[in-house]
Amino acid sequence: MRVVVLAGGVGGARFLLGVRALLDDEAARSTSGGQPQIQVIVNTGDDLTVHGLRVCPDLDTVMYTLGDGIDTDRGWGRRSESWQAKEELAAYGAEPFWFGLGDRDIATHLIRTRMLDAGYPLSEVTAALCERWHLDGSATQVQLLPMSDQRVETHVVCEIEGARRVVHFQEWWIAHHAQPPVEEFVFVGLDDSLPGPGIVEALSAADAVLLAPSNPVVSIGPILAVPGVRAALRESSARVVGLSPIVDGAVVRGMADKCLPAVGVPVTAQGVGRHYGPRKSDGILDGWLVHESDTADVPGVEVRMVPLLMRSPEATIAMAQAALDLCRG
Amino acid sequence: MRVVVLAGGVGGARFLLGVRALLDDEAARSTSGGQPQIQVIVNTGDDLTVHGLRVCPDLDTVMYTLGDGIDTDRGWGRRSESWQAKEELAAYGAEPFWFGLGDRDIATHLIRTRMLDAGYPLSEVTAALCERWHLDGSATQVQLLPMSDQRVETHVVCEIEGARRVVHFQEWWIAHHAQPPVEEFVFVGLDDSLPGPGIVEALSAADAVLLAPSNPVVSIGPILAVPGVRAALRESSARVVGLSPIVDGAVVRGMADKCLPAVGVPVTAQGVGRHYGPRKSDGILDGWLVHESDTADVPGVEVRMVPLLMRSPEATIAMAQAALDLCRG
Repeated sequence: MRVVVLAGGVGGARFLLGVRALLDDEAARSTSGGQPQIQVIVNTGDDLTVHGLRVCPDLDTVMYTLGDGIDTDRGWGRRSESWQAKEELAAYGAEPFWFGLGDRDIATHLIRTRMLDAGYPLSEVTAALCERWHLDGSATQVQLLPMSDQRVETHVVCEIEGARRVVHFQEWWIAHHAQPPVEEFVFVGLDDSLPGPGIVEALSAADAVLLAPSNPVVSIGPILAVPGVRAALRESSARVVGLSPIVDGAVVRGMADKCLPAVGVPVTAQGVGRHYGPRKSDGILDGWLVHESDTADVPGVEVRMVPLLMRSPEATIAMAQAALDLCRG
Repeated sequence: MRVVVLAGGVGGARFLLGVRALLDDEAARSTSGGQPQIQVIVNTGDDLTVHGLRVCPDLDTVMYTLGDGIDTDRGWGRRSESWQAKEELAAYGAEPFWFGLGDRDIATHLIRTRMLDAGYPLSEVTAALCERWHLDGSATQVQLLPMSDQRVETHVVCEIEGARRVVHFQEWWIAHHAQPPVEEFVFVGLDDSLPGPGIVEALSAADAVLLAPSNPVVSIGPILAVPGVRAALRESSARVVGLSPIVDGAVVRGMADKCLPAVGVPVTAQGVGRHYGPRKSDGILDGWLVHESDTADVPGVEVRMVPLLMRSPEATIAMAQAALDLCRG
């Protein structure tokens, strides 16, 4: 069973825990069948360079989560983290103050930055970092694939203190708490980017393709916008199933409710499903999972209503099960 | 009173506390006279790049010491330091393991590396970092001058595990505990280096020039070897006085006893005094302070015997006083 998952940060990472546990469990029950495999295509549009270090928030969140190094309360960053370097940087007056580098986390960024500076592409750097974290499950192989080795950065056109500005997504999100109304998202470098190594092949060889319940605009959106990814996904022989990040007309976590209006999409499970659209027309979905209390009419897409709140490992596994069931038809 | 001090790391930094306190005290007692000033010419031969960060051990030790941020027990690094990033780097298997980056310390290196990468020379980077540390005394202005803006790195030709190797000074010192017998010190980049901005002017305008009780071979040695520094020092109208780092035939701290034999100098106060030599001949000294229990015959140099153990702030101030008295003739 080869499962490809498109994912952003916290929500995607948690969902992946469920997918991995499910495949491990299926492998343990099965007497036949090859080794299950998860290939995660991860958004890199949130990446930024801060204090000279290259930081990849979504890759790190997925890596730390699957590697059991995540701070489970915050959902991001390292467990048992400390902030001494951050305090010192502030004492020096070194901007930006709004992005906090944890002391443990810094090690990851130092290694990444050094390897990138030495000429290794992000995909190889990511593979090297993941070696330490042992992302595989008891039976399931897990591989993280950055959406592109080229730099693609999400910037936000918005009004801040009366002036029209273009800021990095992280600045809009962290420094300005996603408050400034968004006029437009601009994906700098997108046009010249290529899918990361292995991504087209992964989508082609997949038995199931899942869209994690991540932000459709700034997490799943950039992945699909990398030239070649959307086409490869549409051409996959596997069924493509998405999970709604919107439940009861609100985001479960994050700021999709601030992003969707900027691209003219209603903040509803139906709105996002229609935004992705049916693969049999010009969209990408075969199936769409919405929360049990939601309804969605997405012409050309099979919609199922199941619990979509990741309140426990069991609930998350059940979501993965529902998604794979829908993939299997 | 303008005092120029040539200094390495820990010993030099402690001595500077005494010089600053003395000048502050003199200024408080005096009703006339301009603002006292200390310009410290600091060895940068120990500098290294580790995990992509540019680290300047002697500059940092002097800066943290005079800025009251030093760990006084260790003598180097930051007070209340933690080592989370170091642990993580080791968990990733990122070499070198022997050089420990403290979490607080990393902030300094991040800023330095970023500014150097942006094209600022080390002298300007150092000035920017020092702004935060407020190195001035109650009356005394303090300025740190890296010996050169060019990279000069001390390497050690030595035998390690039966093989003749050339390693960075820090590796010989930290990883190999200064144990491998030294065949030769090589100062990579020295021939193409220039004195840092302000150094020739400082030596020219000085009222007193002091050689801190730092390592004569790998701390004071590289400073004097930067083309132009030795000549500027010899041409200064100020008297030049050194303090012996050797007391009773042993180093007070550090590894001068491992370094002096490699350049054919006896590990004695007299040996080091003669190594520096008299300015009236082809050396650099007018005066030479040795410990009260030592004797030294250095032809052409005025030798005085005074306590040279920095066991208390008062003892260190007394050393500074003895040095300046000898400068004043």
